[in-house]
Amino acid sequence: MAETKFLLPEDAIPRRWYNIQADLPNPAQPVLHPGTGQPIGPDDLAPLFPMAVILQEVSQDAEVDIPEAIRDVYRLWRPTPLYRAHRLEQALGTRSRIFYKYEGVSPAGSHKPNTAIAQAFYVKEDGRKRIATETGAGQWGSAVALASQLFGLECKVYMVKVSYQQKPYRRSMMQTWGAEVVASPSEDTNAGREILAEHPDSPGSLGIAISEAVEDAATRDDTAYSLGSVLNHVLMHQTVIGQEAIAQMEQAGAYPDLVVGCVGGGSNFAGLSFPFLREKIAGKEIEVLACEPSACPTLTRGPFAYDFGDTSQLTPLVPMHTLGHDFVPAGIHAGGLRYHGMAPLVSQLVVDGLVRAEAYSQNDVFASAVAFARSEGIIPAPEAAHAIHGTIAAAAAADEEGRERTILFNLSGHGHLDLGAYDAYLAGELEDFELPDEEIERALKAIEPLPKPKPALVR
Amino acid sequence: MAETKFLLPEDAIPRRWYNIQADLPNPAQPVLHPGTGQPIGPDDLAPLFPMAVILQEVSQDAEVDIPEAIRDVYRLWRPTPLYRAHRLEQALGTRSRIFYKYEGVSPAGSHKPNTAIAQAFYVKEDGRKRIATETGAGQWGSAVALASQLFGLECKVYMVKVSYQQKPYRRSMMQTWGAEVVASPSEDTNAGREILAEHPDSPGSLGIAISEAVEDAATRDDTAYSLGSVLNHVLMHQTVIGQEAIAQMEQAGAYPDLVVGCVGGGSNFAGLSFPFLREKIAGKEIEVLACEPSACPTLTRGPFAYDFGDTSQLTPLVPMHTLGHDFVPAGIHAGGLRYHGMAPLVSQLVVDGLVRAEAYSQNDVFASAVAFARSEGIIPAPEAAHAIHGTIAAAAAADEEGRERTILFNLSGHGHLDLGAYDAYLAGELEDFELPDEEIERALKAIEPLPKPKPALVR
Repeated sequence: MAETKFLLPEDAIPRRWYNIQADLPNPAQPVLHPGTGQPIGPDDLAPLFPMAVILQEVSQDAEVDIPEAIRDVYRLWRPTPLYRAHRLEQALGTRSRIFYKYEGVSPAGSHKPNTAIAQAFYVKEDGRKRIATETGAGQWGSAVALASQLFGLECKVYMVKVSYQQKPYRRSMMQTWGAEVVASPSEDTNAGREILAEHPDSPGSLGIAISEAVEDAATRDDTAYSLGSVLNHVLMHQTVIGQEAIAQMEQAGAYPDLVVGCVGGGSNFAGLSFPFLREKIAGKEIEVLACEPSACPTLTRGPFAYDFGDTSQLTPLVPMHTLGHDFVPAGIHAGGLRYHGMAPLVSQLVVDGLVRAEAYSQNDVFASAVAFARSEGIIPAPEAAHAIHGTIAAAAAADEEGRERTILFNLSGHGHLDLGAYDAYLAGELEDFELPDEEIERALKAIEPLPKPKPALVR
Repeated sequence: MAETKFLLPEDAIPRRWYNIQADLPNPAQPVLHPGTGQPIGPDDLAPLFPMAVILQEVSQDAEVDIPEAIRDVYRLWRPTPLYRAHRLEQALGTRSRIFYKYEGVSPAGSHKPNTAIAQAFYVKEDGRKRIATETGAGQWGSAVALASQLFGLECKVYMVKVSYQQKPYRRSMMQTWGAEVVASPSEDTNAGREILAEHPDSPGSLGIAISEAVEDAATRDDTAYSLGSVLNHVLMHQTVIGQEAIAQMEQAGAYPDLVVGCVGGGSNFAGLSFPFLREKIAGKEIEVLACEPSACPTLTRGPFAYDFGDTSQLTPLVPMHTLGHDFVPAGIHAGGLRYHGMAPLVSQLVVDGLVRAEAYSQNDVFASAVAFARSEGIIPAPEAAHAIHGTIAAAAAADEEGRERTILFNLSGHGHLDLGAYDAYLAGELEDFELPDEEIERALKAIEPLPKPKPALVR
């Protein structure tokens, strides 16, 4: 069998992040203050984020230097391997070539540390000594716990209570890396206490946990807040993935005509695809596919509009594809894809036709995940399995048309802490969720009064 | 920071396994038939193992070719990375250099697939279509499930019932790779049925599970039995680890004066250390340290004697360090180190003074595991954490003496499925187990009537 893994030495860890804001055909619309309707400025964000991160958020430079201290931590697992999926190709009997970039080799098991490490570095540089953040299923909280530990920062994670109880191992992982983890709603914040007073048995939600972490950071000078997706700087930090992949595809003597990623908030998708989109914008012929769950079809069925990033309406108004900030997706196992909105940059690229989106049902996704595990060995995270399913479907379509494609997808994490979901799938107990139109219409009512994007930007 | 990971390309996957039997100063004593007291011959083993594996078991050749089909599967994760533990060194403030070989990058998360893949290949070559094996905590069963799937074999795993119930995720992993997993004792074998008739609520044991898997394989022509440690061929298959490490240490411009591994049955320890022991036997000055739990101190407190490999006295008599075949170690979290015996080859090397052993208590080991996770990121398996503790203790002793050492240890697996143990440690709920002499004396009574090794071999 021919070469399977394409590896790069540590000095090939990228020296600059790629900022797609510099190259967008239509600039992204500004984030707005919900009270004034005016664009948010750096000073509005200063209580929460280090200024270096705020400047990255609004930077129009195509390339931003990666500090050596961050590259030094990346050395612990980067460059990540790029695989040729020989055995999956054989199992599918496809004529197409399939490659995947594997981000599950990070200590936290996903792409999330790429930005958590960067954010922790800037928090430390800023002279703060503590990070507050929220986590749902625990992937993001794990990454922040690891990053905080490596930069000598304290870390407090507000973990949605139902996950805190159901996913004790993610909590143990965070605690092993020294983080303080509390079930949210907690007694530690006003936001938490108010909810507990009214609903003592509240199972919590990501919206509530965000409120607690933001309050924690806003009320303590020594503390910064850290977000794991959606924002421009977070997506930019992830572009180390795609930059490495371009070098590795060259090593493999191939170039993808289709780049695939799963989308929740958009960060792993952006990480792989933005460096390829840079080449697409410059003229290369590449198709870029975003894969989402049909239980939370933000890009395929949500409009592009201004909406709040959180359920509790604490955040600024964000221009994005959204199902409405009070949309509550069904309890699919791909917890990281259960977000009502989408990164503004990814949303803009879909609006501009540079990115195409598809939505898949849960059982189809797990069937592809198991086919992958049985041929390639690695057991994928349920989130990443959406990209696998998109890839397998595209290869089948190409075979149907007699085309030979070269497909590259992002295997953004492993599923070692998601084996209960595989258990449910193999036992035939997984539900599929197709949203009736009425449910989407109902959720969208919440955003109707908000300002619409400029028509010129919408195709 | 200087280079952290030392990587090799796929064509550096070793082409031959190293068989230390060729170089032993004193040859290992033969395995005996318990009825006749005579050495076991290849034909005695033929119902259970493919002949190619049996010939490897008794081979005196120093090198045995690795078939390309096995190397092709190894490409999925091999060569594994070798790390310089810069951050751990800093955290310890040691003058010594610490390196580790990381086997947790395999799909099953440990070194076990190195031999499971080889064994599955030979079972397939032998024309059989099915493998039966047992597993305790699930590491070995996972490796066999993966290997069977990749070679198109059926796989049945008899999993100790208490683990089957307490470790559902390991079971899910095996099922994801297509294996049939039953709780042992099961209704599927005579051995299982007999025990259930007498003890319907039996929690099972590794001894019982071995009995079931051996009966399964012995009574079906299409089925082979597969063992995950102890035997000579298993240890030989693991020597890809040490061969790669020698090349990677050269890349790093260093050579270890201390090689460290944890020991249960002996396979990961042998995998790293045997290629270095080859150089030690040829004259190099290297210390080799085997780390075991004080709850199961086979090498440090058990005599070298003939004993059964299993509790039920079904196996041949094996010349090894042993605590007695009816010794039941306390329920420490390093399940893979809870074995009353030891590989004959490792035992012989201890007898001959080429390998030194130390035993550590559970809380000390977890303290070292957490120190490692907080500096290097990776959360280690509790088994591998014994090697970490041995390394940290050796570095501290060297600092005390004003020595600068170069230490290499085997990080044989990750702890993603052992986070409950970290939880217990961080909550201060882990017990330490020091065995009173009487308990060891009592257990050793079971082996007193067995033949002793020739005195010439015992120092």
